[in-house]
Amino acid sequence: MAAVAVATRGWRLLLVLSTAGVAAAGARQPPNILLLLMDDMGWGDLGVYGEPSRETPNLDRMAAEGMLFPNFYSANPLCSPSRAALLTGRLPIRNGFYTTNAHARNAYTPQEVVGGIPDSEFLLPELLREAGYTSKIVGKWHLGHRPQFHPLKHGFDEWFGSPNCHFGPFDNRAKPNIPVYRDWEMVGRFYEEFPINLKTGEANLTQIYLQEALDFIRRQQARQRPFFLYWAIDATHAPVYASRPFLGTSQRGRYGDAVREVDDSVGRILRLLRDLSLAENTFVFFTSDNGAALVSAPEQGGCWSLSSWLPSEWAQTTHTSESTVWPPAEQKGLPWSGSLQAGGSNGPFLCGKQTTFEGGMRVPAIAWWPGHVPAGQVSHQLGSIMDLFSTSLSLAGLKVPHDRTVDGLNLLPAILQGQLVDRPIFYYRGNTLMALTLGLYKAHFWTWTNSWEEFKQGIDFCPGQNVSGVTTHTQEEHTKLPLIFHLGRDPGERYPLSFGSAEYQDVLGRITPAVQQHQEALIPGQPQLNVCNQAVMNWAPPGCEKLGKCLRPPESVPEKCSWPH
Amino acid sequence: MAAVAVATRGWRLLLVLSTAGVAAAGARQPPNILLLLMDDMGWGDLGVYGEPSRETPNLDRMAAEGMLFPNFYSANPLCSPSRAALLTGRLPIRNGFYTTNAHARNAYTPQEVVGGIPDSEFLLPELLREAGYTSKIVGKWHLGHRPQFHPLKHGFDEWFGSPNCHFGPFDNRAKPNIPVYRDWEMVGRFYEEFPINLKTGEANLTQIYLQEALDFIRRQQARQRPFFLYWAIDATHAPVYASRPFLGTSQRGRYGDAVREVDDSVGRILRLLRDLSLAENTFVFFTSDNGAALVSAPEQGGCWSLSSWLPSEWAQTTHTSESTVWPPAEQKGLPWSGSLQAGGSNGPFLCGKQTTFEGGMRVPAIAWWPGHVPAGQVSHQLGSIMDLFSTSLSLAGLKVPHDRTVDGLNLLPAILQGQLVDRPIFYYRGNTLMALTLGLYKAHFWTWTNSWEEFKQGIDFCPGQNVSGVTTHTQEEHTKLPLIFHLGRDPGERYPLSFGSAEYQDVLGRITPAVQQHQEALIPGQPQLNVCNQAVMNWAPPGCEKLGKCLRPPESVPEKCSWPH
Repeated sequence: MAAVAVATRGWRLLLVLSTAGVAAAGARQPPNILLLLMDDMGWGDLGVYGEPSRETPNLDRMAAEGMLFPNFYSANPLCSPSRAALLTGRLPIRNGFYTTNAHARNAYTPQEVVGGIPDSEFLLPELLREAGYTSKIVGKWHLGHRPQFHPLKHGFDEWFGSPNCHFGPFDNRAKPNIPVYRDWEMVGRFYEEFPINLKTGEANLTQIYLQEALDFIRRQQARQRPFFLYWAIDATHAPVYASRPFLGTSQRGRYGDAVREVDDSVGRILRLLRDLSLAENTFVFFTSDNGAALVSAPEQGGCWSLSSWLPSEWAQTTHTSESTVWPPAEQKGLPWSGSLQAGGSNGPFLCGKQTTFEGGMRVPAIAWWPGHVPAGQVSHQLGSIMDLFSTSLSLAGLKVPHDRTVDGLNLLPAILQGQLVDRPIFYYRGNTLMALTLGLYKAHFWTWTNSWEEFKQGIDFCPGQNVSGVTTHTQEEHTKLPLIFHLGRDPGERYPLSFGSAEYQDVLGRITPAVQQHQEALIPGQPQLNVCNQAVMNWAPPGCEKLGKCLRPPESVPEKCSWPH
Repeated sequence: MAAVAVATRGWRLLLVLSTAGVAAAGARQPPNILLLLMDDMGWGDLGVYGEPSRETPNLDRMAAEGMLFPNFYSANPLCSPSRAALLTGRLPIRNGFYTTNAHARNAYTPQEVVGGIPDSEFLLPELLREAGYTSKIVGKWHLGHRPQFHPLKHGFDEWFGSPNCHFGPFDNRAKPNIPVYRDWEMVGRFYEEFPINLKTGEANLTQIYLQEALDFIRRQQARQRPFFLYWAIDATHAPVYASRPFLGTSQRGRYGDAVREVDDSVGRILRLLRDLSLAENTFVFFTSDNGAALVSAPEQGGCWSLSSWLPSEWAQTTHTSESTVWPPAEQKGLPWSGSLQAGGSNGPFLCGKQTTFEGGMRVPAIAWWPGHVPAGQVSHQLGSIMDLFSTSLSLAGLKVPHDRTVDGLNLLPAILQGQLVDRPIFYYRGNTLMALTLGLYKAHFWTWTNSWEEFKQGIDFCPGQNVSGVTTHTQEEHTKLPLIFHLGRDPGERYPLSFGSAEYQDVLGRITPAVQQHQEALIPGQPQLNVCNQAVMNWAPPGCEKLGKCLRPPESVPEKCSWPH
């Protein structure tokens, strides 16, 4: 395996050098690239996307000065696969970020997972290096936390952030707390050196991540070298947090406080670019890894396996309406399973994170590049987070690797010339193609929100939304006669086209060959999210000795990861 | 009754003269007032409110040049009462636009209704006349169609439009087709001289209404007299229509075609104001009479009583997915009750027209007055369609009548100085106070969407949305312990506050006196929407003789109107 990886790497270098374009020829310094990736932020969370409290003036201004994409999609309804897809330009089914442990299951990289980003994948920063870029990741990596998956082994030159989610654990007992790295070494752990107050929601992490970004931009400007900054912050992922000046300032509660701080930070970053006269030479793109988490249950989407480690204060914070309710729910017939979690909005779309409905995968997206991207534009291009890979390479004057399928599209013709390219959007769970969007039509081949067992426990990924036959709690197959929606007339996926209509037949006739072509050419990657092992957790990350923070790992017991939805 | 009305009128004249302000004193001509009232257009139908296909560039520009109200409400979830409230500044429970025939029922003015706007009500154009305004209504009146309710008897100087909805009938048989008036006389009928093609959706009515508006503005500019134009168009009310150049141009289907034509027309009106140098002296306000109709059933909201008159081509147009579905719905368990109607979007809000959830009453609202209203502003003032009454009077230098309760607020401090005034929003059905919003909190005293009987027939005002204990199909009383939502954290009304929480108790302590104060001071008007009679229909409107279009009325048989929801 290692030998193969080395061989691939050598060949890759040749490939990239041979395809280097204008920029590498030294004619002109290519633009800096700044990807602002939000965590669980929904399509409907920005004022410019219709959020009623209108608390995102900086992002709304970014849209007014740039280009808004109303039809932009993540590559998966869950974080790790979506992020792997962004950095590789390839669907999770190709780059290995999926599971085959059960049918149509979402999977990610909790710290017990053994897998991570394969060496055989080309990551964006590795490729950009060939065009002279210096790359930094600030925030959540989520492509594997074992040594071979470290971001600095995959093309980044700098890292400040965490390998896994910040949602827990909190006490280093059953699992180690998640480490925070500066480059190769951990510099502390969440809930220890990097506190997040679960009662008040206070944490200054976004401010730290902001300073990391501003500092990096300033340093690169001084060096006069092109940079790639991947700002992957997580304040809007549960448990959502904000620093003290923002706490309690939003009409939307704690989630809104987090959004306000994110918005303010984006404003500061764009302002610095202007102040340093970098704005016209920096391509900035804002988006989110998946739709907003609409979980109405005590536990959070994606964090379901961690409930046994939840400390008592976390339970108190989030379970209030269950534990203190009066009179008891049963007496009133009221929706007490629907207690409010701090989560975002998917606007008019159905369901949220974890699902392959529009609310799970349609995300906010704004391109900003003063002097290049015309102001105040809206592009109806169907876009994907994977396009950021191909678009960034194009900006750098590089070509995409031609030895493999790349799903990402170069968006520059859409952004700079207003061109529209017909392309499909694929919605996967695990290795199951759940749905496909082609133009304005979306076909569901499988529907599933989550199991009846989970749903009856109160875990609901579509709270307040129930479309009979669509938001199903058994895995319903529709491969022969897909449920087809017209997303223009019916963005909320409420009214499937009639099977007998001419419109249905016409659409089916176009969708069928698109699916066949995709599936015939598909070479699935080795699934990375099948095996879990308590021994691989962050017990003793590099640097732990200096801090006296090394923990003792348990015995190695590989087992199949459990992915319940 | 007639004597009382005369006495009231005489007294009113004195009142208005005595309260005339700056404008009437002749110091300076007050601004023109232009109210653009849409029909069944939802909060989420404009790009600036997050509509994904972004097809309202003119309205989005109007918002960018003016002030957007995300928290603006109609006075009722149905058209007639909302319009009566707009023109009187008073809740329907005060001005008589409600029914007591059954508990908590919506009612409006189909042509069999006997009632209409009482003479004792002061209408906005009557009052504006005292400040020298010339007033015109273009489009739907809906405040009663019998002679005493004619808009020219209630202050308007000109009228082009219809007294009732355009949805039917279509054949003059069981009921006469709805007449179209120019001033005192009918000039034709819908589906005859004013065709609406139910198969294609083609009608040039919006173009006619647009020309009426442009012509009126030009004439008033030439006269150098202030004007009030009430542009109450109905292209977005079912059956939605558009003229040929707009048909088939929207991503959203026929409803979108109608919206695009409306948007284009608003753009033309604002452009004329600029071209005539009237923009800085014309206050323009855009809003809608109630939320979008989300009906998934064959029949349309508000038109439920007319099904027996639906012609076969209308049934074919709208029932396709029921009649030609293959395989039969029963075999698939699919949501065939949810066949798509051409309706709008309420964005993130719950349910739609006919309901007292946010989707039924929160509506788009934009103020535009170049040189006065600062550009690109968002006001979080809780606003009401009734405020347009008080605001218009203030613009004209007039005071609101002080012999009666006026619910409308003068919005000028909010619009011109950014002030915020604490005020309640009341949500009624009939004479039942269903809900109240105070600040960010909304309390439901009664919940009801529609009856189980209707719901089982497929009539669903909340398709795809079901919040247990909230979207109820029995009339549920919560007056002792209202269901309370925080509309900032939870605009979709999905997670009621826990009864036992300190927050609930605190809010209840503020809501209870507000309701008591409202109810103790309330003097309900005589209900106008209780009695129906086939003989009062538009059989022989004035002018019918000239056209040879008089029909013979049946015998007069007064009966209780039936208001099923």
